[in-house]
Amino acid sequence: MKVGILGATGAVGQKFVELLDGHPHFEIEALAASERSAGRPYREASNWIGAREMPAAVADREVVLAEPDALADCDFVFSGLDASAAEVLEHRFAEAGIPVISNARTHRMDPDVPLLIPEVNPDHTALIDRQTTPGWIVTNPNCSTVGLVMALKPLVDAFGVEAVSVVTMQALSGAGYPGVSSLDVLGNVVPFIGGEEDKLVHEPRKLLGSLEDGAIRPYEMTVSAQCNRVPVLDGHLECVSVKLGTAASPEEVAEVMASFESPLAGMDLPTAPARPVRVFEDERFPQPRRHVEAEGGMQVSVGRVRACALLDVKFVVLSHNTIRGAAGGAILNAELLQAQGRLMPRAVAAA
Amino acid sequence: MKVGILGATGAVGQKFVELLDGHPHFEIEALAASERSAGRPYREASNWIGAREMPAAVADREVVLAEPDALADCDFVFSGLDASAAEVLEHRFAEAGIPVISNARTHRMDPDVPLLIPEVNPDHTALIDRQTTPGWIVTNPNCSTVGLVMALKPLVDAFGVEAVSVVTMQALSGAGYPGVSSLDVLGNVVPFIGGEEDKLVHEPRKLLGSLEDGAIRPYEMTVSAQCNRVPVLDGHLECVSVKLGTAASPEEVAEVMASFESPLAGMDLPTAPARPVRVFEDERFPQPRRHVEAEGGMQVSVGRVRACALLDVKFVVLSHNTIRGAAGGAILNAELLQAQGRLMPRAVAAA
Amino acid sequence: MKVGILGATGAVGQKFVELLDGHPHFEIEALAASERSAGRPYREASNWIGAREMPAAVADREVVLAEPDALADCDFVFSGLDASAAEVLEHRFAEAGIPVISNARTHRMDPDVPLLIPEVNPDHTALIDRQTTPGWIVTNPNCSTVGLVMALKPLVDAFGVEAVSVVTMQALSGAGYPGVSSLDVLGNVVPFIGGEEDKLVHEPRKLLGSLEDGAIRPYEMTVSAQCNRVPVLDGHLECVSVKLGTAASPEEVAEVMASFESPLAGMDLPTAPARPVRVFEDERFPQPRRHVEAEGGMQVSVGRVRACALLDVKFVVLSHNTIRGAAGGAILNAELLQAQGRLMPRAVAAA
Amino acid sequence: MKVGILGATGAVGQKFVELLDGHPHFEIEALAASERSAGRPYREASNWIGAREMPAAVADREVVLAEPDALADCDFVFSGLDASAAEVLEHRFAEAGIPVISNARTHRMDPDVPLLIPEVNPDHTALIDRQTTPGWIVTNPNCSTVGLVMALKPLVDAFGVEAVSVVTMQALSGAGYPGVSSLDVLGNVVPFIGGEEDKLVHEPRKLLGSLEDGAIRPYEMTVSAQCNRVPVLDGHLECVSVKLGTAASPEEVAEVMASFESPLAGMDLPTAPARPVRVFEDERFPQPRRHVEAEGGMQVSVGRVRACALLDVKFVVLSHNTIRGAAGGAILNAELLQAQGRLMPRAVAAA
Repeated sequence: MKVGILGATGAVGQKFVELLDGHPHFEIEALAASERSAGRPYREASNWIGAREMPAAVADREVVLAEPDALADCDFVFSGLDASAAEVLEHRFAEAGIPVISNARTHRMDPDVPLLIPEVNPDHTALIDRQTTPGWIVTNPNCSTVGLVMALKPLVDAFGVEAVSVVTMQALSGAGYPGVSSLDVLGNVVPFIGGEEDKLVHEPRKLLGSLEDGAIRPYEMTVSAQCNRVPVLDGHLECVSVKLGTAASPEEVAEVMASFESPLAGMDLPTAPARPVRVFEDERFPQPRRHVEAEGGMQVSVGRVRACALLDVKFVVLSHNTIRGAAGGAILNAELLQAQGRLMPRAVAAA
Repeated sequence: MKVGILGATGAVGQKFVELLDGHPHFEIEALAASERSAGRPYREASNWIGAREMPAAVADREVVLAEPDALADCDFVFSGLDASAAEVLEHRFAEAGIPVISNARTHRMDPDVPLLIPEVNPDHTALIDRQTTPGWIVTNPNCSTVGLVMALKPLVDAFGVEAVSVVTMQALSGAGYPGVSSLDVLGNVVPFIGGEEDKLVHEPRKLLGSLEDGAIRPYEMTVSAQCNRVPVLDGHLECVSVKLGTAASPEEVAEVMASFESPLAGMDLPTAPARPVRVFEDERFPQPRRHVEAEGGMQVSVGRVRACALLDVKFVVLSHNTIRGAAGGAILNAELLQAQGRLMPRAVAAA
Repeated sequence: MKVGILGATGAVGQKFVELLDGHPHFEIEALAASERSAGRPYREASNWIGAREMPAAVADREVVLAEPDALADCDFVFSGLDASAAEVLEHRFAEAGIPVISNARTHRMDPDVPLLIPEVNPDHTALIDRQTTPGWIVTNPNCSTVGLVMALKPLVDAFGVEAVSVVTMQALSGAGYPGVSSLDVLGNVVPFIGGEEDKLVHEPRKLLGSLEDGAIRPYEMTVSAQCNRVPVLDGHLECVSVKLGTAASPEEVAEVMASFESPLAGMDLPTAPARPVRVFEDERFPQPRRHVEAEGGMQVSVGRVRACALLDVKFVVLSHNTIRGAAGGAILNAELLQAQGRLMPRAVAAA
Repeated sequence: MKVGILGATGAVGQKFVELLDGHPHFEIEALAASERSAGRPYREASNWIGAREMPAAVADREVVLAEPDALADCDFVFSGLDASAAEVLEHRFAEAGIPVISNARTHRMDPDVPLLIPEVNPDHTALIDRQTTPGWIVTNPNCSTVGLVMALKPLVDAFGVEAVSVVTMQALSGAGYPGVSSLDVLGNVVPFIGGEEDKLVHEPRKLLGSLEDGAIRPYEMTVSAQCNRVPVLDGHLECVSVKLGTAASPEEVAEVMASFESPLAGMDLPTAPARPVRVFEDERFPQPRRHVEAEGGMQVSVGRVRACALLDVKFVVLSHNTIRGAAGGAILNAELLQAQGRLMPRAVAAA
């Protein structure tokens, strides 16, 4: 399938380009950005920040303007737009019949837009049927939400979860590029990330909610979040305490997480990790720099599962914020939608 | 008064040397360490790691063996010994009639040893009367405890505190020297510090406890702690959620902390901060690198006081781990004990 | 004397504000910046990045537009403008009769503008007489130049210097704020700083040049420079190899540097370091984080003086890039000019 | 072939284990270390510091004592011993008929021991014939030498090199584990690495030397080196100035490096990079964090080739210190020796 990337020159857009290089199902058809970049070769328009080099296949491609007309040949688009651009543009693509797999926060909490983690709530894609435009929009959660929710999902299923206290230590790449000034964060911690704590409160309830009569009933639980920026390149580490619905020992909790069966098993999605959640026994782990790349950055790592004197159980969870928490998550969303038959070549769709 | 420093060549011992340079009441009489260092000039025996240079007055002084006989001229000693050495040695000094102001964890929880923060529980020094040796031992809390307890104290007084959830982001200097390998922590977070979480559970209850019939009745509250090591030089930052005894708004909580009256006011102790607790309004603050040196490293900084959906109120607290949380705290303890008339020149004491 | 600060909200401007707080001779009369900031209180207009807090005296002061009319009450101004703004504005102040002590690179190499390090070439202020405007401009060198030249000056005087090879490892604060993205430099080195190597080639020759017939004859020596950005907050460290005019041993070279007599001795300039150049014997020193603050950031540190197999002698040199290499250097320039009688209250000057 | 690893639990030994996992020619037969580790499973005996996890195949293997008897089944051994252990042990393996491919510095400058970079001096393996023990020793150069020499080799061949000035910025992993304390190097540079500068003076001359009458005649050139430790995980970056034997423009120099033909081309050595030296045109490159992993860490990166006012040409060079500069280099040495027929299964050798 032919895909376009909206916001292709930004940090998230670059990650889409990097991860789609060699993808077995999706081929980059168009790199789209704002007027400032349109018309220039991608090599020049993007200040490439990837650890690996820019894929040769895109280096000389001309960036097009992020308008539906310019991407008419794309079967769907990935959106790495920032929230304000997404506000303006994503609906226009949907109206033009081009599905949008978005990483922007703009439509995440819209009642008819799926907020999707394939291993957690694959059935929520049914919300698409409520969208009235020829195309539609599907979103993935915020980078600090996804690790937390993937660790909670097995607990929700096995015991229920009543309350969550989470303190995050978030990586620099979560702020985009140039993002955080080195003068602010070298040898330092910044105990504030604008808007982040609210996302951690609301997104998990939608993600873990149930589909009833075509709408999402949010999962009932209380979340309290505190977010910090730390001098780490990639990987959000979170200290989590959980109050369970029914009693369980830390060993049972660890076992339930470690044995979590992905609903994607057997679907052969290229970006899906073999094991979505891994539980470490070594109490020093997981650590961002050592474990963030596990299974291509798509595995969530859990460690230090132990009793909490205040709630019931506590643990740390690590996930890759720009892969699992952004571009990689969105690509897996597209793979799921393709497997569900919701995403298909437009020629086929039109037939 | 003439003071000795036990463990003078280590990281804490060096901080004692640095902070006592020019102290108006205490003069370094002896630098004591193990057999490996004894007999060598301090300049050579210590691998000086201070940001400022080694005070000239101590550079050429000969290190003596950490035995009571070698420090017979000292009115009292500061102990920067590690826990195992403290286990062996501190009681021998007390038995020899030499008071020990200790930073070691060994005797902190002993029922007849004061665990002391002068602004919090100055009356606990009465426990000294229960010690039966000619000298005695007083301790200061762990570096991650002191900031938390100083922020809680005004809340305990005003509203009562029923439960605390704390997640720490602790500085490298808390691990001593050489301490944490650069390969383990550069661009990384280590979500584990051996033994640290237990100290945060038990020490606050003793510190906030009440003196009844000459013994400490621990304060009744539940504490759950999660401890992390971050790539910061100095300053432990902690994310705290608190369940209060009686209801109070975040504004009332902030006001109570900001207006905390130090019981040391008017005592003219050289190391006491004018304002023990400061509350920031800027939501980006406090930050370790920017605020850790406030009032010579003796002030505790609080910020982001706001409602907690799970407990009642949450905030961040920052304190200097090697000054307020170690050597500086111990020196302030000695100043209080001197002001209380418990610490005096031995000639006077003997008279 | 009453001083204005041009570019007061930027990184260099903030350093001027910080260093002038409590200055015995100079009082901040006006904080000037561009239209974007003018009219707003300094507290809001500047994103204060200092380690210490913003001086209370300036926090509520209104920022004025950087135009001569708005600073008519100032006896002179410090310029922390960037090069393009300095190009437009500095001459207008000089034309309005207001002396400009500038940190901008714009006029450094102008033949009638002194490029000044008070300990190195105090006589170069005579160039002012060649300036035809009622006011005049004096500049300080680039932050990477000043440490090198202060270390070379004793060698030039004692032995002559024919050639210099210098490789710099420069701190992040040299790039201003927000400056270098944390994503570019955490755990990394960037082996390029735009325009920096040229400054290291040309500025030293002017600084070490001689005043002949009212003009500067550049010092004859060859310089080759390579500049790198390293993840250090403050302090440019430079590895230097020198070919001397006449032979000297490393010991002689170290001795000549260590015994360098400041021409400012006895002038009682508040910002002048007692010892402008310090030579370390410990081969691990100097290090940016440990030694950059020596003598208020105005001392230059040298270490590892040893033979060079290729040229004659090599060593490392460290200087504080935003104090000695920027705002502090400019303030010392003003103090020298005041002592020389060239800078005086405008009322006096007019009389 | 069956290989043993001496010093298997140390930092270099672990890198051997990591890089040999899945090697097509060499299989780990024995993990050998000192008495402290012998008898324990590798999982416990080594404090695994690798970014990737310990290969499952070795985790439970018992560590053996580093003595020839215990490794009698090995066809040869890789030595990751430190210098003092290598002094004692490596000859004993050679005497026992077991070839030693060593990373230790101990025998590098011995006249009958090859100091080998396969792309630079593959013919130097002939020195083996001068060794009189049944087995023999081959060494690879110091981690800071290899990048420099690989960049110089094309210049030596094309123009000759008379003199080199090199300033290094070396990664933390070069100091082993635990190596450099985080307190010494976070936000800092240490301008001294014990013994390092001497290696950069002497090793290149042997490596670039010519084999005459069975002995190495060192290459005639002058080297001056200054070595610094910077807060980077992997990758030594070096600023190099070169005086050529015959004149050449920077463009010619860059071209000669970029078109360097590896003498290994066509030999199909598994660890050999397709392109040993890469030349960047982007003046911000190479950077340690972005480019150190090129071609599995075996490619050397060069950038900023430009004229030097003092010598002739200058540039930066980057190489991976623990792969190209240690374990990977030693493995490539073994592959070359195998291809040359010097390294073979002992059964074959005995036949």
